[in-house]
Amino acid sequence: MKSAVEHIFDLEQPRTERMPIHPAHKQAGYSYLLHRHHEDEYRPEETGPRTGAAGVLICGEHTGTHIDALSHQADALTLCGGVPVGEVQSSRGFTRHGVEEVPPIVAPGVLLDVAAKDGVESLEPGRVVTADDLEECCRAQGVGVEAGSVALVRLGNAVFWDDEERYLAGPGMDASAARWMADRGVVAVGADNMAWDAPGLKDPELGCLMAGHLILLARRGVYIIENLALDELASSGQHRFDLICTPLKLVGATGSPVRPLAVVSG
Amino acid sequence: MKSAVEHIFDLEQPRTERMPIHPAHKQAGYSYLLHRHHEDEYRPEETGPRTGAAGVLICGEHTGTHIDALSHQADALTLCGGVPVGEVQSSRGFTRHGVEEVPPIVAPGVLLDVAAKDGVESLEPGRVVTADDLEECCRAQGVGVEAGSVALVRLGNAVFWDDEERYLAGPGMDASAARWMADRGVVAVGADNMAWDAPGLKDPELGCLMAGHLILLARRGVYIIENLALDELASSGQHRFDLICTPLKLVGATGSPVRPLAVVSG
Amino acid sequence: MKSAVEHIFDLEQPRTERMPIHPAHKQAGYSYLLHRHHEDEYRPEETGPRTGAAGVLICGEHTGTHIDALSHQADALTLCGGVPVGEVQSSRGFTRHGVEEVPPIVAPGVLLDVAAKDGVESLEPGRVVTADDLEECCRAQGVGVEAGSVALVRLGNAVFWDDEERYLAGPGMDASAARWMADRGVVAVGADNMAWDAPGLKDPELGCLMAGHLILLARRGVYIIENLALDELASSGQHRFDLICTPLKLVGATGSPVRPLAVVSG
Amino acid sequence: MKSAVEHIFDLEQPRTERMPIHPAHKQAGYSYLLHRHHEDEYRPEETGPRTGAAGVLICGEHTGTHIDALSHQADALTLCGGVPVGEVQSSRGFTRHGVEEVPPIVAPGVLLDVAAKDGVESLEPGRVVTADDLEECCRAQGVGVEAGSVALVRLGNAVFWDDEERYLAGPGMDASAARWMADRGVVAVGADNMAWDAPGLKDPELGCLMAGHLILLARRGVYIIENLALDELASSGQHRFDLICTPLKLVGATGSPVRPLAVVSG
Repeated sequence: MKSAVEHIFDLEQPRTERMPIHPAHKQAGYSYLLHRHHEDEYRPEETGPRTGAAGVLICGEHTGTHIDALSHQADALTLCGGVPVGEVQSSRGFTRHGVEEVPPIVAPGVLLDVAAKDGVESLEPGRVVTADDLEECCRAQGVGVEAGSVALVRLGNAVFWDDEERYLAGPGMDASAARWMADRGVVAVGADNMAWDAPGLKDPELGCLMAGHLILLARRGVYIIENLALDELASSGQHRFDLICTPLKLVGATGSPVRPLAVVSG
Repeated sequence: MKSAVEHIFDLEQPRTERMPIHPAHKQAGYSYLLHRHHEDEYRPEETGPRTGAAGVLICGEHTGTHIDALSHQADALTLCGGVPVGEVQSSRGFTRHGVEEVPPIVAPGVLLDVAAKDGVESLEPGRVVTADDLEECCRAQGVGVEAGSVALVRLGNAVFWDDEERYLAGPGMDASAARWMADRGVVAVGADNMAWDAPGLKDPELGCLMAGHLILLARRGVYIIENLALDELASSGQHRFDLICTPLKLVGATGSPVRPLAVVSG
Repeated sequence: MKSAVEHIFDLEQPRTERMPIHPAHKQAGYSYLLHRHHEDEYRPEETGPRTGAAGVLICGEHTGTHIDALSHQADALTLCGGVPVGEVQSSRGFTRHGVEEVPPIVAPGVLLDVAAKDGVESLEPGRVVTADDLEECCRAQGVGVEAGSVALVRLGNAVFWDDEERYLAGPGMDASAARWMADRGVVAVGADNMAWDAPGLKDPELGCLMAGHLILLARRGVYIIENLALDELASSGQHRFDLICTPLKLVGATGSPVRPLAVVSG
Repeated sequence: MKSAVEHIFDLEQPRTERMPIHPAHKQAGYSYLLHRHHEDEYRPEETGPRTGAAGVLICGEHTGTHIDALSHQADALTLCGGVPVGEVQSSRGFTRHGVEEVPPIVAPGVLLDVAAKDGVESLEPGRVVTADDLEECCRAQGVGVEAGSVALVRLGNAVFWDDEERYLAGPGMDASAARWMADRGVVAVGADNMAWDAPGLKDPELGCLMAGHLILLARRGVYIIENLALDELASSGQHRFDLICTPLKLVGATGSPVRPLAVVSG
C-alpha cells in the first residue's frame, strides 16, 4: 500500500489545555500532567542509566478532534435502533452503542469545501450550511457522496483553533444537511467546527438545537467526527481520498479522541 | 484502497477498569465515568426530544494498547538525540520528543510469531526472547524485517488480558532482541505483552531493567507499541501487512493510547 | 478555649492509594499525583532560590474518612424532605442537599464502644449491631445520647485499615440501630467501618441493603461519618467530648472528606 | 464547650468550577462530576426504594480555601529544616513535610483588619501590606500576635470571589510582613487573597517573587492558609477567637483544602 501512497494528511488538531472546548465539556476539560519525572528514579549506581517519565490524562472524550458514538445522543430517551436509555446507561457508560462498537473506519472519503464554494477562506459565524449548499458543492467540485463513504465538510473554521471565542462561534450545518448526508448512506460525517451543527440554531420542526446530532446519531446511525483540521487537505485540491479513523475502544464511552488520516493514493 | 483490502485486523485490546495495568501506572490507572446522563437534560416541552450523554476519561497514557514516545525513557537523564531532560521536562510534559512528534504511522508491517515458532499457544512467564529467536522466526516464516517497517512480536500473551497477574508475568525480550530490531532500521516495534521487555530481567552490561526501552527509545529512536492483540492476525497466517497507527497529538505527553490496524491487501 | 483543652483526638484515617475503598467507589478511587516538582522551576540566577511543588487529587468524595450529605441517598427517588431527585440532580451534582448545606459541626459527642461492651478488641465480620446493643452500651458506659449530639459507634474495625478485604468485611449496624439514633435527635452518627451499615444485610421490612443509609440520610436527615479512627479515643476512656467536623463546601457534592476531632476539655 | 460558644464563623469560600484559581494551579483546576445518578440503581421490585448517588472530585490541592504544607516551597531545593528535595520528592508526593504532618490546628486566633485600618472596604490591587501595616493594625485594634497563635490578615479581597480577574489581582504582603509574623512565633498565617504575597512583587534582597512563601514555609516552618472568607468575622468586631483548621491527611501532598472556623466564646 505504501508504494501507492502519494500523501498522508493528518486531520487531527493538537491537544493542549488551551484548545477550545465546548461549554458542555469544560468539566472536566483537558489536562495532561506529568507526575513521573525522570529524576525521580535516577540512581545510576543501583539501577543503571535508564529512567522513565509518564503522566496522567484527564479529559472529556468529546474534547479535541473526536468521534461521537451512537450513545452520545438520544431521541426521547431512546438510542439508535430503539434502545431505551434506561436499559443501557450507567455511571460507567453504556452497555450498548458505546464507542467500542464503532469499527475501525477505512472507507472512501470526500471533502466538500463549502468555504471554497462561497469563495472565502472561512465561513462567517451565523452562516448555516444546508442541503442545497452540499448539493452545489458536489456540482462545483465534480464529486458525489456515495454509500459507505465518509463525507467531510470544510467551513474554514480550523484556522481559529487558537481563538476559542471565534472557534466556538463558527458556522455549522442545519437539519437538511444532516438528512442529505444520511440519505446518501454515509458511514460518518465530519467537519472543522466544534459540533457539526450550527450553534444556537433551533430546528422549528424538531423543536431542538443540534438537530444534526439527533438525526445522524440517534435516528440514522451515522457517526460524527468533530474538530477536524481540513485546510492542508483542501489546499492540496484532493477531494477524494481514503479516510482512516480508529476510535479507541473505551468500553462504554460516548465517543473517542481520534487522529483521522486522509490518504491519497497515487 | 478499499477495493484492494482483503481484511482489517484490529490490534487494540478493549479498555476497561479491569484491564491489566503496569504497577508503575496504577496511579492513576484507568477510569471512564459518565457524569452527563441523558435524563439530566430531558425537557421535551422546552427543548425537544434530543438529549446528550458524555463522560470523563482519567488514565495514564501508558494504559491499554499504546505507543511510547521518545520522551518516555532517558539515558543518564538524556533523551534520544542528546536532549538533556532538564531542558525539556515540565509539569505539563515535554517540549521535545512529546508524542505529538510521532508522525502517523502507515508502514509495512511484519509479524514474528515466536510462540508459533516454539510450537506453543503462549510463551511461558520467564521465557526471554532473544535476537536468535527473532532470526529463527524470520527463517521459519520466510520473512525479513526491512528498514522503515514496523515489526510486531507475538508471544501469545494477549489471551491473558483478563488475568492481570498472569498477563503482567508474561514473557518478553532482552537487549539483543532490541538491538536486532534497531539494527534493521525499523520505525517501531510492538508486542502482545505489557512492556516489550522481559519483566525483571536486569541487563548485565547496561546495569538496568527494561534494557529494550533504553536501547529503542532513548538511544535508537524506535517507538514501542505495547499490549497489542495479535492472535487473530496470527491465526490468519498473514505475516506481512500494512501497519496503521495514529498516536493522538497529546502535546508534551510521553505516549498515547492507540488502536493499530493491520491491513492486508488482496 | 485552648487552656481548657486537655486533649485533641484526630479521628481521620490517613489517605493513600492503598487505603480500603468501597467497591462502589473504586472508580475513580483515590490518587494523589505530584506533577509540579521543585526542580522544574529552579533557575536561581533568574528567579532566586524559591521553588514550588504541587499536585492533583483525583478521588471519590466517599473515600477515606468522610461525611455523607443528604443528597447521597434517595427514597423512591426522593431526597430528604420530599425533594424529587429529578428536580435537583445534574451532571455537576445537586442543587439541594449538597454537602455545602452541611453546617460546620461543633456539637457534644458520645462514643458508644460496642466492641468493649462485647469484651473484644474488634467485632467480627457478620456481627450486626442493633438498637439493643446501643442501649446496653449506654447503660454499661453510664452515658446517654442527647438531641443535637453526634454519636460515634466503635466496632473495633479501624485497626484493619491496611487490610482492605478484612476492613470491608467488617461488622455494622442494622435498621433498628439507625432508628434508635434518629429517635434521639442526633445531628450525625459515625463509625469505624466503611459504610455504617452491616454489609450485605437486607432489611426484610424495607426490602433494601444499607437500611441505615435510607433511614438516616433519606428519611430522618441525619448525616453519617464513615471510616473513623476511634481506637485512641476509646483507649483514653473518654466517652464524652466535643465533636468538630468541617465538611468542605464542595458545592453540589454528595459528601466530603473530613478530619473530625474529638476535643476533651479539662 | 458548646454552651460557652457565642458564634461560629465559617471561613471557607464555596468551591465550584467558577471559583478563581491561581494560574499555576489551573491544571487541573477544580471539577466535581456526578457519575452515579440515583436512577442508575433504582429497581424497587428487586432492591427496594433506596438508591445512592456519588461523584468524583478532580482538583489541585491548592484550589479554594486551603493550607500550604511545608513541602510546598523550597529554598535552593531544600525544604524547611534542611531536608533536600531530592531525598523526599516523588511522583506521589513527599515523604517528609507532607500535609499529613500538619497537626489539627486548634489555637488562639487574631484578625488583623488592614482594610479597616486603611478605612476602606477593600484594599486596591497593588497595595503592598508591610510589617509597619501589621504593627499599626495591632495598635489600632488593641491586640497583639502571640506565639502559638494563628494570625489572619484581612485585605477585603474576599468579596471578589466571583470575579477571578479582580480577585487574582488583589493586594498582598511583602517580605517584612512575613518576617514580622514568623518573629512572633505564629503557627500559621492566613489571608483573604489567592496567595498571601503581593502578586508580582520581586523581593530585591531575596531575588524572588512570593517572598513570604519562601520565608514562612521554607525557612520558618509557618503554614499559610489562603482564600479565606473574613468579612463576616470582621463585621462582628471580633478580633480574637479560637481558630480551628483540620487539614486532610492526604499523605504526601503539599497542601489540603480546609474549612477553617473562627469560634468566639461567650
